[in-house]
Amino acid sequence: MRQSHLFTKTQKEAPADEAAKNATLLIRAGYVHKEMAGVYQWLPLGLKVVEKIKQVVREEMNAIGAQEMIATNLQRKELWERTNRWSDDVVDCWFKSELKAGGEVGLAWSHEEPLADMMKNHITSYKDLPIFIYQFQNKLRNELRAKSGVMRGREFVMKDMYSFAQGEEDHTAFYEASKIAYMKVFERLGIGDDTFITFAAGGAFTEFSHEFQTICEAGEDITYISKDRKIAINEEVLNDDTLKELGVQKDDLEAVKTAEVGNIFNFGTQKGEEVGLFYKNEAGEDIPVWMGSYGIGVTRLVGVLVEKFADEKGIIWPETVAPYKVHLVGLNLDDKEIKDYAEGVYASLDNKGIPVLFDDRAEVRPGEKFAEADLMGMPYRVVVSKKTKEEGKFELTNRTTGETRLLSEEELYNHL
Amino acid sequence: MRQSHLFTKTQKEAPADEAAKNATLLIRAGYVHKEMAGVYQWLPLGLKVVEKIKQVVREEMNAIGAQEMIATNLQRKELWERTNRWSDDVVDCWFKSELKAGGEVGLAWSHEEPLADMMKNHITSYKDLPIFIYQFQNKLRNELRAKSGVMRGREFVMKDMYSFAQGEEDHTAFYEASKIAYMKVFERLGIGDDTFITFAAGGAFTEFSHEFQTICEAGEDITYISKDRKIAINEEVLNDDTLKELGVQKDDLEAVKTAEVGNIFNFGTQKGEEVGLFYKNEAGEDIPVWMGSYGIGVTRLVGVLVEKFADEKGIIWPETVAPYKVHLVGLNLDDKEIKDYAEGVYASLDNKGIPVLFDDRAEVRPGEKFAEADLMGMPYRVVVSKKTKEEGKFELTNRTTGETRLLSEEELYNHL
Repeated sequence: MRQSHLFTKTQKEAPADEAAKNATLLIRAGYVHKEMAGVYQWLPLGLKVVEKIKQVVREEMNAIGAQEMIATNLQRKELWERTNRWSDDVVDCWFKSELKAGGEVGLAWSHEEPLADMMKNHITSYKDLPIFIYQFQNKLRNELRAKSGVMRGREFVMKDMYSFAQGEEDHTAFYEASKIAYMKVFERLGIGDDTFITFAAGGAFTEFSHEFQTICEAGEDITYISKDRKIAINEEVLNDDTLKELGVQKDDLEAVKTAEVGNIFNFGTQKGEEVGLFYKNEAGEDIPVWMGSYGIGVTRLVGVLVEKFADEKGIIWPETVAPYKVHLVGLNLDDKEIKDYAEGVYASLDNKGIPVLFDDRAEVRPGEKFAEADLMGMPYRVVVSKKTKEEGKFELTNRTTGETRLLSEEELYNHL
Repeated sequence: MRQSHLFTKTQKEAPADEAAKNATLLIRAGYVHKEMAGVYQWLPLGLKVVEKIKQVVREEMNAIGAQEMIATNLQRKELWERTNRWSDDVVDCWFKSELKAGGEVGLAWSHEEPLADMMKNHITSYKDLPIFIYQFQNKLRNELRAKSGVMRGREFVMKDMYSFAQGEEDHTAFYEASKIAYMKVFERLGIGDDTFITFAAGGAFTEFSHEFQTICEAGEDITYISKDRKIAINEEVLNDDTLKELGVQKDDLEAVKTAEVGNIFNFGTQKGEEVGLFYKNEAGEDIPVWMGSYGIGVTRLVGVLVEKFADEKGIIWPETVAPYKVHLVGLNLDDKEIKDYAEGVYASLDNKGIPVLFDDRAEVRPGEKFAEADLMGMPYRVVVSKKTKEEGKFELTNRTTGETRLLSEEELYNHL
């Protein structure tokens, strides 16, 4: 991609009302546009990051046998009333609207109810189970406050997955598989070491649910963590019983600020009973389906990655999610010879399948180009200029370490 | 994909309240689930069709230099008030909701206003223009009636594109390029011959807008078409002046039922002025940006393809959008030798990169398998059975023509 073609411009300042570091940097670097508090447009570079995270999640969910689909934003009032989750007194984040044809609709903040209801058409016998489905959904939540940038949106992308099983045994097998798949996702995104499977409050069917909490100064949670033992406990279940059960002393735990990047929850047969989702077992009896739900905050993860890896110069993307691996910065481009040379390097990188953003703008000063490249955060910067051409070398800078090396053309391609 | 793993089941009947042929077939074949009138979940097979159409559109939009992004569903009241499109008296399809933090928000039925407003951060000079952006957006429209299945949804996927240009000349260059790109999309989807660029009502800046109308019995429009001359006119502009201008006689035109699959519109400088999107020309003067908007109804296209190509047995997908190219139907699978043989064929097709849905279910009768395969509509059906194994041949049936051929393994792979 040529930077001269990319329509987004970097900005010196973010909007005055933007308090979060992640959104400030994402806005300044041209990844997102703030539509209103907690509501962000994803511009071309930002959309690429979101899609790359989605693809990592998709691969890991497919690998454990889950099937992708997409449910609807519009929600039926009567369905959510059946499970007592329509009332604003019970669920405080509904957006609701009048239907011109009469009646009221909700905008989806979660999807257990409609997906359990849909499954009535596809589950009749024990032979149909287990089933695992997931989606990347544009969720809407009517948050009273939204001051954490893309880490807590009123509109945000979530991967939500639902499991349908015959009973606790099959449920647990998938629940445990999902833990491993989730950790693979976070490892691939470069936050595996800082992400902890955290014991949190369970429900009627289970003592604990599990959150995936990532150490992050901008996180909204406090988690009690033993880094050595990889044990983490949410404040809400931090009590003597839990400590005893997990075989850990309170003194061994450190209270750290964390961001919840995922969670998994066991509904048992509660949803199946409420919604009326039953299967026939081998004896022909009607048994409520055992359900679980499994979330990953896709756009929240973008924010977490920015918060954790950015430095004073700007964003630093892990290679897995960077919109482009290389930021090729051309200098002295008003010299036709250098321009042709830089174009050749761009074409070579492109032909080798290396994703590259080419700063081909002749009218921008070198200092400004470098500052923009740092702000935008591609993992590698390669400079092509009159000087590097004369030396027959390329200047490769690692955005994370700041280390710069002079490489021959062959060394450069091998390195990338 | 193994059919035993696919969670969706085909159904003998669609919901009693479903009047549209497209939705009836899509529901019965397990592509969609009806959440409410005009609101459909896209199940795994349906999502694949939607994604394939999106990819065709994406490639053609990228080819004319447009950049993909994604805007938000939630809309600011004050922005739409500025262009006098907030009032329900002016725009009759808004979903609106209260914001818990105070005030009202809208749910997006179109995006000219927010995207023009966003562009203020990225357009300052004539040097920044032209810019073309597009998105695949889950649009919400509060339709009073929704009886056309996925062809007129209250929630639907639209590709909407917007052009930002210095003036009429640059605008027109892109407008004409988009016409060609649109026709390429429709040709690739197999409806090129039946899709007509149709003269429709223009606005303040232009005599006509253009619709892309596809001949379709289930369409909601009547279009006046000369097939020979590839001229088509919307009823609203069918008058003596138009006929004279286009050099066509009313008698040469045939009134046909059509579905609008796309439209392109010239806003001139109206939106730029209303929203306050100006650029500085070479003389340093502030000039309003010239805008156009360009839509393609992605999920509507799914409905149009079903309506146009289905036969009495079920759906027939054009190869470009079929979830799988081949439906491999295994018979006599309770015989271990045949089962192994069929598995080998599945693995071979898969290894050759041919997208295949393998009906590996041992317990389903052959007649039912064939009926399901016809209903689901993959372009090719390949039967593997005790009989075909003994003959050393494969039975390949073309879903469109119904023609069946016996082929050797090599012939089969070459054919596919």
